[in-house]
Amino acid sequence: MNSIITGVGSYLPSIIKKNSDFLDTKFLNEDGSEFEYDNAVIIEKFKDITGISERRYAESSYFPSDLGFFAAQKAIENAKIDPETIDYIIVAHNFGDVLPTGGRSNLLPSVATKIKNLLRIKNPNCVAYDILFGCPGWLEGVIQANMYMKVGEAKRCLIIGTETLSRVVDAFDRDSMIYSDGAGACILETSATTQKGILSHATQTFSYEESHYLFFDKTYKKDSNDEVLYMKMKGRKIYEFALNNVPNAMKKALDKSGKSINDVVKIFIHQANEKMDEAIVNRFYRLFGKKAPNGVMPMSIHKLGNSSVATIPTLLDLVMQNKLENQSISEGDLVIFASVGSGMNINAVVYQY
Amino acid sequence: MNSIITGVGSYLPSIIKKNSDFLDTKFLNEDGSEFEYDNAVIIEKFKDITGISERRYAESSYFPSDLGFFAAQKAIENAKIDPETIDYIIVAHNFGDVLPTGGRSNLLPSVATKIKNLLRIKNPNCVAYDILFGCPGWLEGVIQANMYMKVGEAKRCLIIGTETLSRVVDAFDRDSMIYSDGAGACILETSATTQKGILSHATQTFSYEESHYLFFDKTYKKDSNDEVLYMKMKGRKIYEFALNNVPNAMKKALDKSGKSINDVVKIFIHQANEKMDEAIVNRFYRLFGKKAPNGVMPMSIHKLGNSSVATIPTLLDLVMQNKLENQSISEGDLVIFASVGSGMNINAVVYQY
Repeated sequence: MNSIITGVGSYLPSIIKKNSDFLDTKFLNEDGSEFEYDNAVIIEKFKDITGISERRYAESSYFPSDLGFFAAQKAIENAKIDPETIDYIIVAHNFGDVLPTGGRSNLLPSVATKIKNLLRIKNPNCVAYDILFGCPGWLEGVIQANMYMKVGEAKRCLIIGTETLSRVVDAFDRDSMIYSDGAGACILETSATTQKGILSHATQTFSYEESHYLFFDKTYKKDSNDEVLYMKMKGRKIYEFALNNVPNAMKKALDKSGKSINDVVKIFIHQANEKMDEAIVNRFYRLFGKKAPNGVMPMSIHKLGNSSVATIPTLLDLVMQNKLENQSISEGDLVIFASVGSGMNINAVVYQY
Repeated sequence: MNSIITGVGSYLPSIIKKNSDFLDTKFLNEDGSEFEYDNAVIIEKFKDITGISERRYAESSYFPSDLGFFAAQKAIENAKIDPETIDYIIVAHNFGDVLPTGGRSNLLPSVATKIKNLLRIKNPNCVAYDILFGCPGWLEGVIQANMYMKVGEAKRCLIIGTETLSRVVDAFDRDSMIYSDGAGACILETSATTQKGILSHATQTFSYEESHYLFFDKTYKKDSNDEVLYMKMKGRKIYEFALNNVPNAMKKALDKSGKSINDVVKIFIHQANEKMDEAIVNRFYRLFGKKAPNGVMPMSIHKLGNSSVATIPTLLDLVMQNKLENQSISEGDLVIFASVGSGMNINAVVYQY
């Protein structure tokens, strides 16, 4: 008995924020000092490394619970299921229903409860909870749902990732250009097959030295009265960390699946930084003495940036809908999902279509 | 193979806030109007219903992650285990590392990552994540850990509940007197036995009409500029909801366990309101045509108030340490854990000592 994805959905917020929209932004160094070159240079370098040319921001009237609801509706429709038959709604996010104003996020009730309410699901045996696990949160929700299915406690789960990172970034920090808003969701169901679906997974949390590679802190604008906490990152450390650890976790999951590296057709990797993602996948293949095949890694980062927990399900949805050029999945394809993010958390799932 | 609790620990914050400390507080009605009677009357009525005479508040230098760390240390010590052998750290909370000032909670990294870091655990295969599930979050973490063990993905888990509700209450709302701060934790391990440990569980989420019985909103002081969101509740609706649904969930879990109502020795119920808890337990016994035995329900609410996710593990720890008068657990006792809270979520676990 395996768990299979029977529906996928995503929501792309309507506001397109282009790199050029940052030309007049005042970026500062961590110590509050100004850069010696102008924004055009910063943006060009940024684009070279990350691959990002634009990103999406949610309209101010929408909260992550709304975005997640929109994605969930589409996943339910795509799976052609009755929402009343869902056993679990697992919602991954990191900051709750974030206020654009910087005040306390609306965290009561949970985002999962809000989405279940918006979906008008009556069944009280549909358990709805939130998980916080950094960017890998959505994939971890899939892993958790798979375990509930294996133990016979669920047959059909809705797993949602939703985030509005635009509301937790420091406008004075050039890293803010990486982040975007969005939501993605899937329906996971039990199936009698042992040939398809989730074959294996691996999850790790590195927190001994790495816990604060992504963290909350005040604005880089030292002379401001702004007391709001913003998302900050140690980019170089994250890059090295990811390269050293993500390929191994992917290998661990692949080895557990019993499949060969030659079977792998696609890798859906968290869209954090194009150069980093390429380096991770190259190193992963090098563990098997291979070169990464062209096109193995569908990329959405150019137009969508890094929307944290929303990234992988959105990417999957785009590919399933043939909305990414030269990217598709066919029956029989072996796929690896992999993510890395704050925690530092890493996970990987090997999935047989 | 069953999961058994091998260690328990809790942390009681040092600041004791007595009912009399609220005598000079300005309480207001929901519409901002003043009460027609003075605080002595409000407090007496409050105590009659809830049973609460004092509660604990965390020192301002501590965050929920600190409280949770203190409780976790004690649970690990109590279980006499090497923390490096823990497979999962599951942390239930609802608001992250809440700032006393009302600003955005520190939610990056997750509370689980912070606690794992404070515990100095190196093992990256110890997966650390947060769940938000209202007051039943800690018990739900236990249920999740149990499923991971059943499916062979974990052998030893640390489940923590930690909260500083004093930081999310509206000082002008008399309901704020209910809430308190604290943390509790347990170690859950696999055991070859099928006679002991977790025998069954039940979980439900009621969100169709009930999603906003507990919710965030602005202060009752209508003429203030305070934009901070505070925890608010529809007390009467929660009371009726709990009475109508918690006994059934407890019965569902007990029926699944194969045990009889006559086997039940203790009920560890979430400490929300003494009168409500008594009514729930009485109605539970009535479902079996029985009267609730004296002393079946250990109570900590008088001195500790409602500390949300921290309540049940703290209560269990107090009983295990013989710190509650005339309350103890012996080998062979059948115990029910039950909780209700925002979501509205309900859960119950039947546990054989």
